[in-house]
Amino acid sequence: MQIDTKRLNDRITVMNTIGAIDGGGNCRLSLTDEDKAARDLLAVWMREEGLDVKIDELGNMYGIRAGKSSLPAVAIGSHLDTVTTGGRYDGTYGVLAGLEVISVLNENKVVTDRPVVLVNFTNEEGARFAPDMMGSLVVSKPHLRDEIWKSVALDNDKASIRSELERIGYLGTVPCGSIPVAYYLELHIEQGPILENEQVNIGAVEKVQGIYWTEYILRGQAAHAGTTPLVNRKDTGLLAARINLFVRQLAEEIHTQLGTIGLMEFSPNVINVVPERVRLMTDLRNPDDIRLQAAQKKLDEFITAQAVEDGITVERTERVRLAPVDFSGEVVDRIDAACKQLHLTSRRMVSGAGHDAQMMAAICKAAMIFVPSVNGISHNVKEYTAPHDLANGANVLLSAAIQLANAK
Amino acid sequence: MQIDTKRLNDRITVMNTIGAIDGGGNCRLSLTDEDKAARDLLAVWMREEGLDVKIDELGNMYGIRAGKSSLPAVAIGSHLDTVTTGGRYDGTYGVLAGLEVISVLNENKVVTDRPVVLVNFTNEEGARFAPDMMGSLVVSKPHLRDEIWKSVALDNDKASIRSELERIGYLGTVPCGSIPVAYYLELHIEQGPILENEQVNIGAVEKVQGIYWTEYILRGQAAHAGTTPLVNRKDTGLLAARINLFVRQLAEEIHTQLGTIGLMEFSPNVINVVPERVRLMTDLRNPDDIRLQAAQKKLDEFITAQAVEDGITVERTERVRLAPVDFSGEVVDRIDAACKQLHLTSRRMVSGAGHDAQMMAAICKAAMIFVPSVNGISHNVKEYTAPHDLANGANVLLSAAIQLANAK
Repeated sequence: MQIDTKRLNDRITVMNTIGAIDGGGNCRLSLTDEDKAARDLLAVWMREEGLDVKIDELGNMYGIRAGKSSLPAVAIGSHLDTVTTGGRYDGTYGVLAGLEVISVLNENKVVTDRPVVLVNFTNEEGARFAPDMMGSLVVSKPHLRDEIWKSVALDNDKASIRSELERIGYLGTVPCGSIPVAYYLELHIEQGPILENEQVNIGAVEKVQGIYWTEYILRGQAAHAGTTPLVNRKDTGLLAARINLFVRQLAEEIHTQLGTIGLMEFSPNVINVVPERVRLMTDLRNPDDIRLQAAQKKLDEFITAQAVEDGITVERTERVRLAPVDFSGEVVDRIDAACKQLHLTSRRMVSGAGHDAQMMAAICKAAMIFVPSVNGISHNVKEYTAPHDLANGANVLLSAAIQLANAK
Repeated sequence: MQIDTKRLNDRITVMNTIGAIDGGGNCRLSLTDEDKAARDLLAVWMREEGLDVKIDELGNMYGIRAGKSSLPAVAIGSHLDTVTTGGRYDGTYGVLAGLEVISVLNENKVVTDRPVVLVNFTNEEGARFAPDMMGSLVVSKPHLRDEIWKSVALDNDKASIRSELERIGYLGTVPCGSIPVAYYLELHIEQGPILENEQVNIGAVEKVQGIYWTEYILRGQAAHAGTTPLVNRKDTGLLAARINLFVRQLAEEIHTQLGTIGLMEFSPNVINVVPERVRLMTDLRNPDDIRLQAAQKKLDEFITAQAVEDGITVERTERVRLAPVDFSGEVVDRIDAACKQLHLTSRRMVSGAGHDAQMMAAICKAAMIFVPSVNGISHNVKEYTAPHDLANGANVLLSAAIQLANAK
């Protein structure tokens, strides 16, 4: 059995007509009209494949293909939401390769022992609502449902997760976590340069690095840019600049550390006014928990000391605290075995990005399959993975999913 | 003759009910509905004082009080528009103190030789449209009218100066520069700490420092914050941070130099995406033209070199290039004389901020009168000048305006 490369690519092409942006990328921010259109299309395809479609209370979509037994399922999938300048494969590929696996099982009338469930998780990206990996988070921790429902859109403080789910018709009734899952397999583009650089076909992902997102609101004093002596200024923009350079320095000095400021907002944001307020978010990552915590501590110490010196007050909110996650050795072994069977080269690796699989790892045996990304570019319209690499990954997913669906 | 402090303060209070914001300040961005309401109120007050109200093609408002002769007029005034977080006095005080002068002349049935014209200039602040001091600029250079009409709102790329003037009903028919003016006197709060620190009543402003506004658009590459190694990044936010610190360094190292970045916009402005594009504006000021040019040159050299190093392209647009301006010695002398007559202390000074008076200086004899600002705070809701200082300034304006209106 092999996946149908043309069908897979055609479905990716059709899905990516939704929210298409200049340059060949996509913008389907979570729970927008574009996200709804993508969900509607997936639901149509799921029903065409005879899947039993269910929506849970966080809007996570499940297409269930029954197995012989009532054992907990093998779930496969990813997410259809994107960042503002998203590429064509991040998330979408994992969902539609999962759909392709279902199509192949159906065509070949394969009956598996366990059910196979295709999943599209809500708000993996976190680009419109915090935290990211939201849908899978609540599946793994159902008691968070009410709190998460209240999360407010970063682009509209009148819109919450619950109100937006209701608005687009995806506030389902299935309780999060109520569908029994034994294994979770997620196929994804690497979003980094390692597989391409080493010319390896497949990454068998055994770990996800930790992620800390922290929001800082700096408050100084608005003042006239032409008349206020330097010594009288409380320039929050300048403190923000120092923080940005310090984050970079941490990433340069601490082993395996990454650090980024992607979000920065000046207020009142006027040419001739010293900025009174800056809101910024820091993104720190490290596969080593101790080093990640140390980086965050150094950052906070720097900001506290510099803010005092600059006469600026700082409001700090921890938005995301995700420790590094180890995946299931059993599932990683199955991926490796599938690669060998398919004569594909593979290597064990750490995921630089966060993924729904790391949430699922808390409640089932999970792992990920990576395929190469050209130049490692992602979250960008230039994101690209060659069709033969897309096909390789989907074939590994097919093989590993069948093995797990028949595992005792 | 003395001005009526209560009437002046009452008019300031009533005017500042328009566009009032939290903390006691005002937001009347140019050509918004709030600006229209302020203009409408001023027009009512002008007509109550029997002034002949005229609107020119840039929306500048004139209230003309005839003189005995047909000699060119003495113009007095300022502007009613504010920045986003504007205070209660910047501009508004100059216009309403001018109105108070007219009221006193009327009450005392004073007949002056020259006409006295109360002026409210359009878009002095430049907070919604570039350039600032726009109305007085076109009065001094009428050939710029068509170009300036096309200036696009910073908050709405569908709105131009001309379309917004039309929308609010202030696209007048009087050609800019067609009202003959011999003298221009502008009363303003200092917006700096010098008069307060030295406990001097009045500043006789003999010079305005030069102002350079430059827009930089930095273009790098959007990339995933969790997977993109530092070496592969083209992080425009980081370059923007380096530019901010360099501007500060210029202000620290070059004599009498100021430097500010008040406007900074990240794009896509998402937590986990390395910013692909940053738009920022630099504001450099110096009373010395040579030093100001040198500061701008150093800044551009820094940005060019650093951008190459960071793999980032830079689009640079000169938004404002205003050389330092010398005011009329004759008018400054009249201000000094008025202070002596009123037993007020005064000092010569340089204006740190740009003002309409510097544009008017190109076509008539102009100068400015400053009064103290508490803590030098301006462009801020905390902007404050004590009532007795407001009264002092208005009395100096009254006295100097009468002298000039009877000058040969």
